[in-house]
Amino acid sequence: MLIVLKPNVTTEEIDHIVDKIKSLKLEPYVSTGVQRTIITVIGDEDVIRELPLEAIAGVESVKPILRPFKLVSRDAHPDRTRVKVGDVVIGGDKIVVVAGPCAVEGEKEVIEHAKMVKKAGAKLFRAGAYKPRTSPYAFQGYREQGLKFLAKAREETGLPIVTEVMDPRDVCIVAEYADIMQIGTRNMQNYNLLTEVGKARKPVILKRGMSSTINEFLMAAEYILSQGNKDLILCPRGIRTFEDVTRNTLDAGVVPVLKDWTHLPVVADPSHAMGIKDYVTSAAMAYLAAGADGIMVEAHPSPEDAMSDGQQTIDYDQLVALIDRLGKIARAMDRDIY
Amino acid sequence: MLIVLKPNVTTEEIDHIVDKIKSLKLEPYVSTGVQRTIITVIGDEDVIRELPLEAIAGVESVKPILRPFKLVSRDAHPDRTRVKVGDVVIGGDKIVVVAGPCAVEGEKEVIEHAKMVKKAGAKLFRAGAYKPRTSPYAFQGYREQGLKFLAKAREETGLPIVTEVMDPRDVCIVAEYADIMQIGTRNMQNYNLLTEVGKARKPVILKRGMSSTINEFLMAAEYILSQGNKDLILCPRGIRTFEDVTRNTLDAGVVPVLKDWTHLPVVADPSHAMGIKDYVTSAAMAYLAAGADGIMVEAHPSPEDAMSDGQQTIDYDQLVALIDRLGKIARAMDRDIY
Amino acid sequence: MLIVLKPNVTTEEIDHIVDKIKSLKLEPYVSTGVQRTIITVIGDEDVIRELPLEAIAGVESVKPILRPFKLVSRDAHPDRTRVKVGDVVIGGDKIVVVAGPCAVEGEKEVIEHAKMVKKAGAKLFRAGAYKPRTSPYAFQGYREQGLKFLAKAREETGLPIVTEVMDPRDVCIVAEYADIMQIGTRNMQNYNLLTEVGKARKPVILKRGMSSTINEFLMAAEYILSQGNKDLILCPRGIRTFEDVTRNTLDAGVVPVLKDWTHLPVVADPSHAMGIKDYVTSAAMAYLAAGADGIMVEAHPSPEDAMSDGQQTIDYDQLVALIDRLGKIARAMDRDIY
Amino acid sequence: MLIVLKPNVTTEEIDHIVDKIKSLKLEPYVSTGVQRTIITVIGDEDVIRELPLEAIAGVESVKPILRPFKLVSRDAHPDRTRVKVGDVVIGGDKIVVVAGPCAVEGEKEVIEHAKMVKKAGAKLFRAGAYKPRTSPYAFQGYREQGLKFLAKAREETGLPIVTEVMDPRDVCIVAEYADIMQIGTRNMQNYNLLTEVGKARKPVILKRGMSSTINEFLMAAEYILSQGNKDLILCPRGIRTFEDVTRNTLDAGVVPVLKDWTHLPVVADPSHAMGIKDYVTSAAMAYLAAGADGIMVEAHPSPEDAMSDGQQTIDYDQLVALIDRLGKIARAMDRDIY
Repeated sequence: MLIVLKPNVTTEEIDHIVDKIKSLKLEPYVSTGVQRTIITVIGDEDVIRELPLEAIAGVESVKPILRPFKLVSRDAHPDRTRVKVGDVVIGGDKIVVVAGPCAVEGEKEVIEHAKMVKKAGAKLFRAGAYKPRTSPYAFQGYREQGLKFLAKAREETGLPIVTEVMDPRDVCIVAEYADIMQIGTRNMQNYNLLTEVGKARKPVILKRGMSSTINEFLMAAEYILSQGNKDLILCPRGIRTFEDVTRNTLDAGVVPVLKDWTHLPVVADPSHAMGIKDYVTSAAMAYLAAGADGIMVEAHPSPEDAMSDGQQTIDYDQLVALIDRLGKIARAMDRDIY
Repeated sequence: MLIVLKPNVTTEEIDHIVDKIKSLKLEPYVSTGVQRTIITVIGDEDVIRELPLEAIAGVESVKPILRPFKLVSRDAHPDRTRVKVGDVVIGGDKIVVVAGPCAVEGEKEVIEHAKMVKKAGAKLFRAGAYKPRTSPYAFQGYREQGLKFLAKAREETGLPIVTEVMDPRDVCIVAEYADIMQIGTRNMQNYNLLTEVGKARKPVILKRGMSSTINEFLMAAEYILSQGNKDLILCPRGIRTFEDVTRNTLDAGVVPVLKDWTHLPVVADPSHAMGIKDYVTSAAMAYLAAGADGIMVEAHPSPEDAMSDGQQTIDYDQLVALIDRLGKIARAMDRDIY
Repeated sequence: MLIVLKPNVTTEEIDHIVDKIKSLKLEPYVSTGVQRTIITVIGDEDVIRELPLEAIAGVESVKPILRPFKLVSRDAHPDRTRVKVGDVVIGGDKIVVVAGPCAVEGEKEVIEHAKMVKKAGAKLFRAGAYKPRTSPYAFQGYREQGLKFLAKAREETGLPIVTEVMDPRDVCIVAEYADIMQIGTRNMQNYNLLTEVGKARKPVILKRGMSSTINEFLMAAEYILSQGNKDLILCPRGIRTFEDVTRNTLDAGVVPVLKDWTHLPVVADPSHAMGIKDYVTSAAMAYLAAGADGIMVEAHPSPEDAMSDGQQTIDYDQLVALIDRLGKIARAMDRDIY
Repeated sequence: MLIVLKPNVTTEEIDHIVDKIKSLKLEPYVSTGVQRTIITVIGDEDVIRELPLEAIAGVESVKPILRPFKLVSRDAHPDRTRVKVGDVVIGGDKIVVVAGPCAVEGEKEVIEHAKMVKKAGAKLFRAGAYKPRTSPYAFQGYREQGLKFLAKAREETGLPIVTEVMDPRDVCIVAEYADIMQIGTRNMQNYNLLTEVGKARKPVILKRGMSSTINEFLMAAEYILSQGNKDLILCPRGIRTFEDVTRNTLDAGVVPVLKDWTHLPVVADPSHAMGIKDYVTSAAMAYLAAGADGIMVEAHPSPEDAMSDGQQTIDYDQLVALIDRLGKIARAMDRDIY
């Protein structure tokens, strides 16, 4: 930690800051330059991070030296995490495609959708039983019943199931049915929910908050790992910016940063990033070329009849073509596709 | 709802769209211009809002005509909502100041802090028993015990209590102790939590999500009102932008929009908007001059010893001066201050 | 300057960095902590700022200690700058209102508009002879002829003239006619234009770029001061964010930062910040309460007939009311209004 | 154009709006629904776009139907534009790599840099003679002399030259020396500069403004085309967002939109998008996989000695590897590389 003092700082103020740091059992070093005096603090940065140094008279700014997360960091865990689900390993040489409709639309429907996804060649099936909706008047999902429909779809197709959990009260039941529990973008900083899925023993896919910084995203991941759940997948899905032609702004650039800073696999969601079905394929290819380990995409046999998110949902033919193109890119990058 | 068709749309595509709209019992009107064909849909916009029109072949764009919220709108409820808490009415002619530390720091401490706030002239006391923290390793609050400490602080000072609820499982107990339940910025789209506080019969203050649009903010408010809870206060608290000198970007400009579109009172939080204690007073004055009905501010007898958010917390003298200056501005605007 | 090294940095890499710094005649101090080695550099930060330290093997991050600007800083110039134009001093105890239409709309029109502005009580008149327009097909302004019309308006009313210059080739002629030259938001980083107005001997009002950081805004100001022109006014005018209800997001929070960091006067533009005429008054009051020294507002006798920006332009009655309300706020803040 | 009226609009207000529209020789159609009255305007949208309809009493909002640009649109020009420079066609089946240092660093240096770029396999050479610098105290480029050095580098290597023009006064001389004139991000809305390069008869590469919307970017392109210059290349280079780990946020998602809406070739700049040399390759691959026709990258034999932008500049080995990887991706997409 580096503490920059104001140009007019007094000796008393410096002494006060030094005492404060020493009282935390940390070592302050004062260096006086021509324009500013600086205090460098050696020791556990976590301790001092909690201290409101900027509130102390004489302090101009505080500059942390270390990144705030630990368990997600490759420093502490140089081997890459691989999450095994059924026969698929996420985070290895082969990339994986997760596909399915936004919502579970009924028992018959979800089985039909899973069959379509399997036939197209995707290896995991996604569909939401619990749906976070902007409007209180919109369809909120089949909830517990939807989980049972998903279990039937898995029975029929053998595809593992990815489905969202929104409420700490539902973690137990979702963990019972899902193969991977999804934390949605609006819940990325729902810390009690993160803590509950961290305690569960089911893989988790954590979506980036729609305006979360990379550091916040990784601190949310840290919550889950800190509870003992090691099977975590990071999911970029676009961020909110000033641009409004697309639903969000594709954050393909975050992929190399996540792969560099962390040991966790990255499966990216091009559907929410773009919000427009005709641009989803290009977005998926960009995420993959940037280094993603997989793609999670909204697909439906008839997007115009989808119960939600139809405008960003690709159809069967588009899904088949997408998987073909992803495979070619993967091989051009000396990887392969499941 | 206005549906703009692509320049090369076919007659079959137009017929398909028209049939789709009629199947929802809505009336489509097709107008063919030189450059584009347009379909205007008359009827309940909520019905068609759910339909993924952009997924239909031939559709270029869809333009909604109405705002998506109803209960929060002044159209439906021209009289302004006034929330009564103790002797104070929020949303009337007199503005109100809510003050207190970020967190409940202990029994003795919270009583001392409430006394300080009362002495300075604020009319409500705020402090967090449950604390959403970016780091899993940081202090997470005194939780239920903190609520009991808050009740003692109220007993000692008579000040009503504003405190955050983060988890649907805690709504009952927080509602029992708090005078106003706060929904924090990270939970603005935690829909299950919104639903639970909507069912409770205690006033709620809803903070704007850190990158929520005004429409999303008001849809979150709509969730609460739709459950029957009418005592809702909106709380702007800065938004996230590219600027990083301040913690957030002060959103004073949202105040006149909220006062124009809704009937709900607005109490704004300049502490989180700025994140730097020396700029909090100017920010509070800006919110007030923009039309806010109150100010909620972090204050502590010794900000540098605060357990969290000290860098943006004002001290007793600053709080006294702030209340004095707010009073002068209020009177210059033909209002007054409690 | 603080240089944080990577955890696995080698001795050779450290030596290389140290040599590099010494070759610039600066003093490096190496401190080795448990988790990171840090190099603190004492000396002229400008020299090292130019060096691409992050490109050197072993460097993790670089943290500057000083702000990059000098001449605009209050450190170097503790007295506040006051810009005198006619009988008005901008940056003193009295606040000033600048008003007028977006564009010069003709000789007769501009005289009529200036008279309206004077009658309403504003002390400076603004109107654009050169207009930066998003579309090449839109009206681009009366240009040189417009400057002559402005001169006539000044003759008739005595009001000093504020008008934009967009092109380095036009600085001479605009300086001849204008009392204050305006640099528009799109030209805030047009460095050749900044250099030319810096060489002129006419006051300049510099608008903040629509997504400029505070540091970039002040570096643009530094360009002007560095050429010898001391009469500079800073103009916040809203910034671009994800919010699209308003044209821009009101940046009232920047005012206390500018007043704290610099000695320059601040005159803010609520019209472009909001983009909606009915919210302009609230926005102007927010800027003033945040500490602005003046308000520059678009006003026109019949906004719906304005040649540009009519949707954000207030009319005569609104301007009279605005000036009255600003006067009351100014006095509540122990200031006054011209 | 669709005009939505306020719920309480009066008949007089409606008549006034209708008259206004008719006075522009456009046809208004009034439809009265349960909740809102709407006026649809048929005819040339450009005419009405200039009218400040929101300033008229009774108008709630205005919704344009058409995109504001014409010449850049694929509607009007279904064949893709191909820009020929030397032996290279930009915008055809083969992708192209442009590389070179940020700045011309001297005669000997620029020749050496061009030779390195040629040897690595790039087909065009980029380097700035005129440099827009945030600080007035930083190196501003060799200017006219730099252009002469560039001409020598072309003579020695045969590589066509891409170089920036910042000032309308310099367009003639830059056009004389450059093979492609670059408009930088800070000048994307410098309309007089756009007009001058539009009049020149040299290809232009237009960088996206750092917070420009897609519509603004294309309106800037429209300025150039409207002056008769058809040889225009669009250059995404990252946009400014809240994320600060990278210099900008990679805007790979804009590529499919530009390819869909316009007929212009897209050459993207991953160096400025990321700002960190180790992430440039991934970013370049993402742009390419998203559909770009070429990549423009900063490269230097010794990035740590580069006169500017060294932190985001790749070295010779990285450039060789990048071109190899881009070739593989191009072939996986049924394209090829020059």
